[in-house]
Amino acid sequence: MDKGFIHVYTGPGKGKTTAAIGLGLRAAGAGLKVHMIQFMKGRRYSELDALEKLNNFTFSQHGRDEFVSKEKPEQIDIDLAKEGFECAKSLMNRKKYDMIILDEINVAVDFKLISVEHLIKLIEKKPENLELVLTGRYANSEIVRIADVVTEMLEIKHPYQQGVEARKGIDY
Amino acid sequence: MDKGFIHVYTGPGKGKTTAAIGLGLRAAGAGLKVHMIQFMKGRRYSELDALEKLNNFTFSQHGRDEFVSKEKPEQIDIDLAKEGFECAKSLMNRKKYDMIILDEINVAVDFKLISVEHLIKLIEKKPENLELVLTGRYANSEIVRIADVVTEMLEIKHPYQQGVEARKGIDY
Repeated sequence: MDKGFIHVYTGPGKGKTTAAIGLGLRAAGAGLKVHMIQFMKGRRYSELDALEKLNNFTFSQHGRDEFVSKEKPEQIDIDLAKEGFECAKSLMNRKKYDMIILDEINVAVDFKLISVEHLIKLIEKKPENLELVLTGRYANSEIVRIADVVTEMLEIKHPYQQGVEARKGIDY
Repeated sequence: MDKGFIHVYTGPGKGKTTAAIGLGLRAAGAGLKVHMIQFMKGRRYSELDALEKLNNFTFSQHGRDEFVSKEKPEQIDIDLAKEGFECAKSLMNRKKYDMIILDEINVAVDFKLISVEHLIKLIEKKPENLELVLTGRYANSEIVRIADVVTEMLEIKHPYQQGVEARKGIDY
């Protein structure tokens, strides 16, 4: 493989995590090894049940299902995010993976659970061939600057605006 | 499940097909039945190899790998798109699926391989509980109007602009 890219999926629209998972699925289908680290998420999303059937696509969650307050995050949320970040570092050092997805890390940075300086340092140490995928709204402008591929999902129309509830298998 | 939605992923940015596949994966993980019909694509994308390992997520391709000319599409391209469209109609009528993805149908409509009037008719006959997912740039404004969830992928940064070649497992 050529030099691996830094991919960012950000913006308020739908499809950031699902696009990253679809990218991981493509990589896994081509025989590449993929690991997804989910920040600020503890809920058992339905796609994880499907992913477990694939050999090359593993994942870990480092968050709670509970709402995290941006103004005053709890210590447990900070600790869990740090744990996820250490996990990312360790996986990157071991060079076992071809693609690592840091799901919702942009939000973890925006909420100051992880400092942008630490994330930049991590990115700078990326093994050359690794594809690194960062998702979540509010991507930091410094991250956008150093990334190779940046896509912003815009919400043109969304039924939740009209008070529709999230549905299992579709929204989670 | 509640009333199924009409989802549209459009725009020039990356992640439209991958987001739809991620959505399908989530649905399949929740035990829902998903079928993806790919228009204007004949290439064996790597993600299809991964999808074949899942029980609830099937797909079919109705296109060629060759470039389709917008100004003068060949008869075979029109025929293949029509075949895909008939397949979509038939699958919808049989009500066997919980989610149907019409991948790249927006482009097929923009290229006039399928008329927007026919697509609107198809959408209007959607079984109530079916989730219908339409992808591809250039979504027709009438389709956007009748859809429930519309996301536009914007290309903020893309290395192909700088002459990097597409890579197996990442781009296809």
